[in-house]
Amino acid sequence: MTEDDDLVSRVLARDQRAGARMITLIENDAPGAASRLAELFPHTGRAAVIGVTGPPGAGKSTLVEGMVRAWRDRGRTVGVLAVDPSSPFTGGAILGDRIRMASLTGDPGVYVRSMASRAHLGGLAEATPAAVRVLDAMGMDVIVVETVGVGQSEIAIAGTADCTVLVTMPGAGDGIQAMKAGVLEIGDVFVVNKADREGALRTRRELNAMLRMQDRTPRPVVLLTKADMGDGVEQVVRQVEEFLDTRRGSGQLQKRRLRHLEREALELIGAQARRRTLATLDQATIDELSEALWERRQDPATVAARALAALQWADNDC
Amino acid sequence: MTEDDDLVSRVLARDQRAGARMITLIENDAPGAASRLAELFPHTGRAAVIGVTGPPGAGKSTLVEGMVRAWRDRGRTVGVLAVDPSSPFTGGAILGDRIRMASLTGDPGVYVRSMASRAHLGGLAEATPAAVRVLDAMGMDVIVVETVGVGQSEIAIAGTADCTVLVTMPGAGDGIQAMKAGVLEIGDVFVVNKADREGALRTRRELNAMLRMQDRTPRPVVLLTKADMGDGVEQVVRQVEEFLDTRRGSGQLQKRRLRHLEREALELIGAQARRRTLATLDQATIDELSEALWERRQDPATVAARALAALQWADNDC
Repeated sequence: MTEDDDLVSRVLARDQRAGARMITLIENDAPGAASRLAELFPHTGRAAVIGVTGPPGAGKSTLVEGMVRAWRDRGRTVGVLAVDPSSPFTGGAILGDRIRMASLTGDPGVYVRSMASRAHLGGLAEATPAAVRVLDAMGMDVIVVETVGVGQSEIAIAGTADCTVLVTMPGAGDGIQAMKAGVLEIGDVFVVNKADREGALRTRRELNAMLRMQDRTPRPVVLLTKADMGDGVEQVVRQVEEFLDTRRGSGQLQKRRLRHLEREALELIGAQARRRTLATLDQATIDELSEALWERRQDPATVAARALAALQWADNDC
Repeated sequence: MTEDDDLVSRVLARDQRAGARMITLIENDAPGAASRLAELFPHTGRAAVIGVTGPPGAGKSTLVEGMVRAWRDRGRTVGVLAVDPSSPFTGGAILGDRIRMASLTGDPGVYVRSMASRAHLGGLAEATPAAVRVLDAMGMDVIVVETVGVGQSEIAIAGTADCTVLVTMPGAGDGIQAMKAGVLEIGDVFVVNKADREGALRTRRELNAMLRMQDRTPRPVVLLTKADMGDGVEQVVRQVEEFLDTRRGSGQLQKRRLRHLEREALELIGAQARRRTLATLDQATIDELSEALWERRQDPATVAARALAALQWADNDC
């Protein structure tokens, strides 16, 4: 009997070490991860999942720390997933997040975990919903998913939450720019952090102006915070709770969750199809493709189409 | 005869309006884009492609503007692609980049273009190399690809250049953090911009320490710039040129380009396999999958595997 034998039951018994082990299996795409996740699934769907995203330097981790404390004061258990892009160099997760969350260590009602993917582009987008499900099965009332950065995959991850908090800071023309660039539409609650800095009100005005151009009812609010002083954090949590209550009452929350699950399944189908097809290519095909490119006889799209056509033919050859 | 009839020959004749039109066709994945790209391909491979990336607020656009002027002073023609994540809300590209490049307008030896993808996640990663090829076929000597953000897809785009410049700014603990998180290894030249700000030397020291831990010969240099004053920009361009000359002489540049072309072809094969498979799913399968998720009978990975198995069976049914 290995230490992993009763992993599922230990996760369900809220054993944090078992949860950590389970998430590691997911990150490594280890054998046995998928079947255990399938076993956990019927025990999930209870937690409120909150995404927190925004450009670097906006103070997301500090805000998250404050939000976690506010939920703890309400007696709720909280899991935090800090999602970092992969790095073969750093070997993955950056310790910083955990250090910054120091005020929360020792509290058994809080579980903080950094996520890193050594695997491949988009790996985090696949692993994160699975890791959220582990925390959910562990009985966490609230799960906060903090994503670093403003890239498309980070946006995609944050967008799968029940409620997404977008954080920016004053004076950052680029911060607002980043907000505009594909993120604005996934935000449910907006926060201008570091509100004691110059330009906070202008930043809020700009965000409100952009939100007015969208056609959402009710229109999301823009809150000012000084997360390092704790100012305004309570209000953010209240706003998130209100958002969830309204959506739960109207049935929209359940619909949103189903849509996310469907999308996750379709993404897995697509990713698997991609992987299988690439694994099917033999060395001769790859060499031929490479030569055509090297001699500039055919462009990447043409050699790709040719390789696919050959596979298609092989598939139907029975 | 439509206006697009002689698009390929007009691009090759360095007609900027034709180039713009061609890139629009690529962004929209329009019919006729692929065949025209295939025609252009044998006329490409001459330009030096420079990636510029880093966190928001580091001053990338200002640096790029200065670099373009330095190359213009050397009599080289320069194309700039500013890559923004997609936004259904903004309708795509942000005008800001063009405005900031105002000092370059009116110069026929410069062509600046913002790229946006309305299509799908990863769309930009597919469209950008194709757009680079258009500028290459237009006879641009140097092509600068500026990516906004620090996400995985932005890193992937910047990583396909002949030489990648990583830009950060002083005092930004998060800036360095972002640098560490998967980007450091794709940088060939490092720049600490806004070097008049406090902490510039410390930031350079930190970067140098991180680079020392990697095993690269020669080790990349870290340069200080004040791009808004033009300070240090000339040195960045010189460093980039030196990097390219060395790599060209040793044959490494050619190998790197072939590797990028191969990867691009494999990505296209993977993306196409993904798309075809998802298009094959019928409504009955999707409905069934959705119900299993809704009732929490099966998790996304299980329903995905089931759908794929059904397709597999259909494939071999002849």
